[in-house]
Amino acid sequence: MDLFQKCYDFTRADEVKALGVYPYFRPVQENEGPVVMLEGRKVIMAGSNNYLGLTAHPKVIEAARNALNKYGTGCSGSRYLTGTIDLHVQLEEKIAKFLGKEACLLFSTGFQTSQGVLAPLVGKGEYLISDKDNHASIVAGTLLSKVGQAELVRYKHNDMKDLERVLSKLPLDSPKLIVSDGVFSTGGEIVNLPRLNELAKKNNAKIMLDDAHAIGVIGKGGRGTASEFNLEEEVDLTIGTFSKTFASLGGFVVGKAKVIDYIKHHSPALIFSASPTPSSVAAATAALEILEEQPELVTKLIQNAERVRKGLTDAGFNVIPGRTAIVPVIVGDDQLAFTMWRMLYDYGIFTNVFISPGVPQGRQMLRTSYMSTHENSHLDFIIEKFIEVGKQLKVI
Amino acid sequence: MDLFQKCYDFTRADEVKALGVYPYFRPVQENEGPVVMLEGRKVIMAGSNNYLGLTAHPKVIEAARNALNKYGTGCSGSRYLTGTIDLHVQLEEKIAKFLGKEACLLFSTGFQTSQGVLAPLVGKGEYLISDKDNHASIVAGTLLSKVGQAELVRYKHNDMKDLERVLSKLPLDSPKLIVSDGVFSTGGEIVNLPRLNELAKKNNAKIMLDDAHAIGVIGKGGRGTASEFNLEEEVDLTIGTFSKTFASLGGFVVGKAKVIDYIKHHSPALIFSASPTPSSVAAATAALEILEEQPELVTKLIQNAERVRKGLTDAGFNVIPGRTAIVPVIVGDDQLAFTMWRMLYDYGIFTNVFISPGVPQGRQMLRTSYMSTHENSHLDFIIEKFIEVGKQLKVI
Repeated sequence: MDLFQKCYDFTRADEVKALGVYPYFRPVQENEGPVVMLEGRKVIMAGSNNYLGLTAHPKVIEAARNALNKYGTGCSGSRYLTGTIDLHVQLEEKIAKFLGKEACLLFSTGFQTSQGVLAPLVGKGEYLISDKDNHASIVAGTLLSKVGQAELVRYKHNDMKDLERVLSKLPLDSPKLIVSDGVFSTGGEIVNLPRLNELAKKNNAKIMLDDAHAIGVIGKGGRGTASEFNLEEEVDLTIGTFSKTFASLGGFVVGKAKVIDYIKHHSPALIFSASPTPSSVAAATAALEILEEQPELVTKLIQNAERVRKGLTDAGFNVIPGRTAIVPVIVGDDQLAFTMWRMLYDYGIFTNVFISPGVPQGRQMLRTSYMSTHENSHLDFIIEKFIEVGKQLKVI
Repeated sequence: MDLFQKCYDFTRADEVKALGVYPYFRPVQENEGPVVMLEGRKVIMAGSNNYLGLTAHPKVIEAARNALNKYGTGCSGSRYLTGTIDLHVQLEEKIAKFLGKEACLLFSTGFQTSQGVLAPLVGKGEYLISDKDNHASIVAGTLLSKVGQAELVRYKHNDMKDLERVLSKLPLDSPKLIVSDGVFSTGGEIVNLPRLNELAKKNNAKIMLDDAHAIGVIGKGGRGTASEFNLEEEVDLTIGTFSKTFASLGGFVVGKAKVIDYIKHHSPALIFSASPTPSSVAAATAALEILEEQPELVTKLIQNAERVRKGLTDAGFNVIPGRTAIVPVIVGDDQLAFTMWRMLYDYGIFTNVFISPGVPQGRQMLRTSYMSTHENSHLDFIIEKFIEVGKQLKVI
């Protein structure tokens, strides 16, 4: 038996490529936000997490450029050892203040943040209670906690009755952490935090939210899920990312100073990983400043997403309802999703294809998402072409 | 019981801070390579992974600046969906060619690369055989494979007799992957690849090396461990990082095209993580070009490390022998390590302190590492002050 046999046997990607409908790993040649250059032509981007369109903002680029000159292109070490620069510390202070928490800690990616927080914090004799649809990075984090002998319990997606059921079976006195996406990345739904919080308090559980798709999108001035529900004091840990609203790369966790300090000194994903680059940290800092100065960008983002959501729903598409930047259009079949993706792409619109087993059978979708910087003409063109293609393929 | 009790009880960092010898998370205020600004004064950096000193190289900075203008400050998505730019593809082609392999795949951090490769590749009924001193990122990767029901077997550090022993107990026909650091990050030793390769071939095992501390350091023109031993064809997968020699942030894996393609379509750490930023990719590309054009930088790096290694060994320090960029000075006690670190720091030298349980009791060390861009005056000052402090503390 050959370890690589599974690789030699994997042909699905080649088959989809042969059909001309392979939507993945397409290289962008230039990026100005809502419009990108792909295969030599301009395409409207309807699948990016660049929610406030800040990756091309002059102030953000300027901040990144200045950091390159002062600190160089990388920090060449982990935060723990030689890789901390004053920009890291300043951004941590800014984020903690923005979210009204005692302390913040940066990680080099959002993906690493989940495991960086969960693995050191939840171990033997402790319970990690996780929504079944949490992001893949949380799944990786919960699995690492499980190897560290934490008890891993999962509950049905955003189903508070099921959460109540699983909690009722656990010893009241045992330490517990309930972890949930604030805004779920596939469907764009918001967690039922008020009920989750009641259940947490009744059952001696702390709460951790992943606000990757929530910061800059919901809550007061884009302050995320806890703010959306006026439950800022009740959420113990919030993690987030710099690769969406903040136009950069990296992640963070906020919480009580003692908890953050513990993670700082016990987290392999922090201690043994090179720190975020100077230009990434500077870009995220500038993006946060813009968000603080221009909360109207958040309003515009939500209006933009709502314009498409309403347009497609009114046209008869099976759109998952919501009020975030994510507008998922269910088509229910792998091949149909690929074909529809290709037809929209030929019209100059880029969407994301989610197929089985990434989503359950029947939930295959074109997942679209929007930016503050989309113009109405972009959005109306997207609606128009979705309708045209949808009719042709008998999706509507 | 409170989940956060362990955090409230954690006081060791505060105690070390109170003694004035806390060496961690010190923010650098400016960085020009061998000399950095720390707490308002210039300090010689003797603990960075910036091996070729390229983070401050004008060509590397210029490449990063140009990428900012063309692609913005972040890609706002994963490689899989909307986060691929042509610079990613170009760097993958360049690295594959540089290392003489069919294909390459980038990850957003070196830390994520290990788990991004191991978790999808080694699963149920397959064996992962790992050196006990492998880097923490490999440990995380092996644990995720274990959760995926791979059999995890560890062998004594770089001990080929022990590797032979553990292999002899496994079924010959079962798929196996032996994973080892090429250059071990703590002690700087090089893996015994010739013997490891013999054992792999005898036992139906593939080989994966982590060349984070090897690329740009050993091998022909800095091509790493396989090249060092003329065993390029025998190593199946090599992973590496951009945060050391390549002056940036990110990681990569090289290997056969079919294997890389499989990882591309099955790796959560790739598919669900935002891609490396345009400026980071451009910086790494420029750094690789400089390495290809100026292999003499590698020679200078090794000479620089050897100058300090010889100086400290001759002076009577317990230095781990080697021929990489890492020069570890064992002092054998936590408090002694902290005190010696502080005295050197007061002289304007920054080193890394490795204490228990990070290293075994008695192996506590000041781990130093060098750059091509250190001048002899820097190195001789380091030797001089080590000797002065070492005598004062009766380490020598």
